[in-house]
Amino acid sequence: MFVLVNLKAYPCDPVAVAEAATSVESDQAEIAIAPQAAHIDRVADTGVETWAQHVSPVEHGSHTGSTLAEATSDAGATGTLLNHSENRLKLADIDGSLDVAQRVGLDTCVCANNPEQIGAAAALGPDAVAVEPPELIGTGTPVSKADPDIVRDAVEATKDVDPSVDVYCGAGISTGEDVVAAQELGADGVLLASGVAKADDPAEALESLVDPL
Amino acid sequence: MFVLVNLKAYPCDPVAVAEAATSVESDQAEIAIAPQAAHIDRVADTGVETWAQHVSPVEHGSHTGSTLAEATSDAGATGTLLNHSENRLKLADIDGSLDVAQRVGLDTCVCANNPEQIGAAAALGPDAVAVEPPELIGTGTPVSKADPDIVRDAVEATKDVDPSVDVYCGAGISTGEDVVAAQELGADGVLLASGVAKADDPAEALESLVDPL
Amino acid sequence: MFVLVNLKAYPCDPVAVAEAATSVESDQAEIAIAPQAAHIDRVADTGVETWAQHVSPVEHGSHTGSTLAEATSDAGATGTLLNHSENRLKLADIDGSLDVAQRVGLDTCVCANNPEQIGAAAALGPDAVAVEPPELIGTGTPVSKADPDIVRDAVEATKDVDPSVDVYCGAGISTGEDVVAAQELGADGVLLASGVAKADDPAEALESLVDPL
Amino acid sequence: MFVLVNLKAYPCDPVAVAEAATSVESDQAEIAIAPQAAHIDRVADTGVETWAQHVSPVEHGSHTGSTLAEATSDAGATGTLLNHSENRLKLADIDGSLDVAQRVGLDTCVCANNPEQIGAAAALGPDAVAVEPPELIGTGTPVSKADPDIVRDAVEATKDVDPSVDVYCGAGISTGEDVVAAQELGADGVLLASGVAKADDPAEALESLVDPL
Repeated sequence: MFVLVNLKAYPCDPVAVAEAATSVESDQAEIAIAPQAAHIDRVADTGVETWAQHVSPVEHGSHTGSTLAEATSDAGATGTLLNHSENRLKLADIDGSLDVAQRVGLDTCVCANNPEQIGAAAALGPDAVAVEPPELIGTGTPVSKADPDIVRDAVEATKDVDPSVDVYCGAGISTGEDVVAAQELGADGVLLASGVAKADDPAEALESLVDPL
Repeated sequence: MFVLVNLKAYPCDPVAVAEAATSVESDQAEIAIAPQAAHIDRVADTGVETWAQHVSPVEHGSHTGSTLAEATSDAGATGTLLNHSENRLKLADIDGSLDVAQRVGLDTCVCANNPEQIGAAAALGPDAVAVEPPELIGTGTPVSKADPDIVRDAVEATKDVDPSVDVYCGAGISTGEDVVAAQELGADGVLLASGVAKADDPAEALESLVDPL
Repeated sequence: MFVLVNLKAYPCDPVAVAEAATSVESDQAEIAIAPQAAHIDRVADTGVETWAQHVSPVEHGSHTGSTLAEATSDAGATGTLLNHSENRLKLADIDGSLDVAQRVGLDTCVCANNPEQIGAAAALGPDAVAVEPPELIGTGTPVSKADPDIVRDAVEATKDVDPSVDVYCGAGISTGEDVVAAQELGADGVLLASGVAKADDPAEALESLVDPL
Repeated sequence: MFVLVNLKAYPCDPVAVAEAATSVESDQAEIAIAPQAAHIDRVADTGVETWAQHVSPVEHGSHTGSTLAEATSDAGATGTLLNHSENRLKLADIDGSLDVAQRVGLDTCVCANNPEQIGAAAALGPDAVAVEPPELIGTGTPVSKADPDIVRDAVEATKDVDPSVDVYCGAGISTGEDVVAAQELGADGVLLASGVAKADDPAEALESLVDPL
């Protein structure tokens, strides 16, 4: 299982969370951290797999305030989220951001709200899609419990379009049991945020998530 | 063939174009006009099939400046474009606008740039998709001539996802020959704009488009 | 006092509200109605002063899905709101929309959240600005009661920049007493929405608002 | 004079440009570099004054893909551009970004197209505003030559609103003569981009800009 910890704009110490992630030993889990763009450098320096939270659909050129895929890669990112529910993108821009991310060699995960949008996202050819029903984000109620059919339908919609695309499951994941439930519903990974980023002991939080795998 | 004339924000007389459309007799073509929202009422009064250029992904409520699907329908619209290249929408908003349009009973056509995005749009369940390579819009060079594979690939991407979704072809269509070429490549309709909206004699322009069918 | 009733995307009958407005007799109040763009035509036909809820910062041309100032004017609008809190615009687009609205002869009112933004809006040269603290919209608590200093400061910020710009007061206005309070704080008008649009008897609602003037 | 070199999304080596900037000796010029957010860390490590190209109008919290002011500050930024013509912001978001930037202690410069918008930007209380007519960006023709009145009017509009706000001048500045002309028109600084970022020898390019001061 892929476990992506999204640090969002939380007031956490990104390096401490990254170091916690590198300390977790598991052959069943691959942990990555997605910090603020300005923190990618120092997070990647810990040796943890580092993701951008977003890259802009732009190439080198006159694009002030953009997040250039090449710059996140220089700084150490090896993957990027796209179209997170807190950063919804135009359809054409998801396509454009995937193009630049793929050219730079970043892994890509496109988030979406529901199985229809997941099917649409999968049609654009990302490495993975992530289903995150907005009404569950930050609730502590995992989608695998609140509405397991959404996960099953998202997996099915993805595999119908392109069986090579992985499916991650976000929103409300906070325990190892939730991670196992996501796996049993067909997910290849999970997206987490506050459960780890805001934990008093991020290493312990991560261990309890991956231990049951 | 479905022939949709998009009046955009052109300085044309929308009622004159609508009346021209009602005067064209053809059993091979179904002509519709998409005026400014503020002109739907008077265009629909001519008896022509009338489309909105866009509806917002909102339900009744506090949404100042939105284009409410119900209001366009009240005024006489029976269909709507979505995600035109001059009005790109977020993936989640295309999904939301489709939901409200369908509940109100509007036909829907989601535009997109290329076959990948067309596949994504088709996955959201519209009545039709329209492929309009942005580099050809307004050029007078039809996509059927500039790059016929884009149309073929768009048709294939759509049918792979959902064979019930129609495919329209836009960008650069200006002659009856272009319409026939689109049809031969598998398109179920065409999107037009300046060729008719800015013609000295819109009825003549429309007749020359549908005559060869 | 100018009294602008914003119908937003409410499920009301816009013509019934417009007719109610025309039935109210008052030499102290000037009542206008801002319906959906697709309803401007029929609302203006009642003879009431009709406003658009928004116009796009575009001129005639290729702008699908825009709200062309000329089209709203054709349909009968004589004014437009801009930058309502439910439709926030880029600074450059407020400036662009003001330019097109003014060329077409529409009256303009730029909304903003707080006195600083009101000063900025006034610097762009609209006919009026409207202060609407977002936290009060739809609450039924008028800004004149919740925080009268916001109105006073908005009036002062406006007059410092350009004494010819009128100041309207929105958010939470629901009684004639609220309208009088706004006037006493220096406002030249009020913005209303649900209090009239959702009233069982809009004429009665409007009369009770303007009677105490 | 303040000289801000905006590296945009150019394919330059940000550290090389930063080191060039630190090598320039001048008591008349203060040079700062605005790299991609992911490069702030390494640029600030050279000791040069480092600016963000943008910060989002958000506080700590759930804001994936945002540029958190605190994160840019952590990484070493001491200032930020806002509302660059390549990254136009909503009026309310300029106000919100100024609030977070100021709380974190970043210097702020709000860009705008013309004297009216400059007056509006100044009313929001930034440290500086920058006038950059979009039609001149990247042309090599400085605004001080193409239309000196725009600079004079921008200075006047700013001083009318708040005399403590500095005025910078951008678009087309490429020689020391242009910098002097900007200064003579009342500007307190200049914004540059390709002239330095794409120079074969950025140190030489910067020296030739500040030497005539």
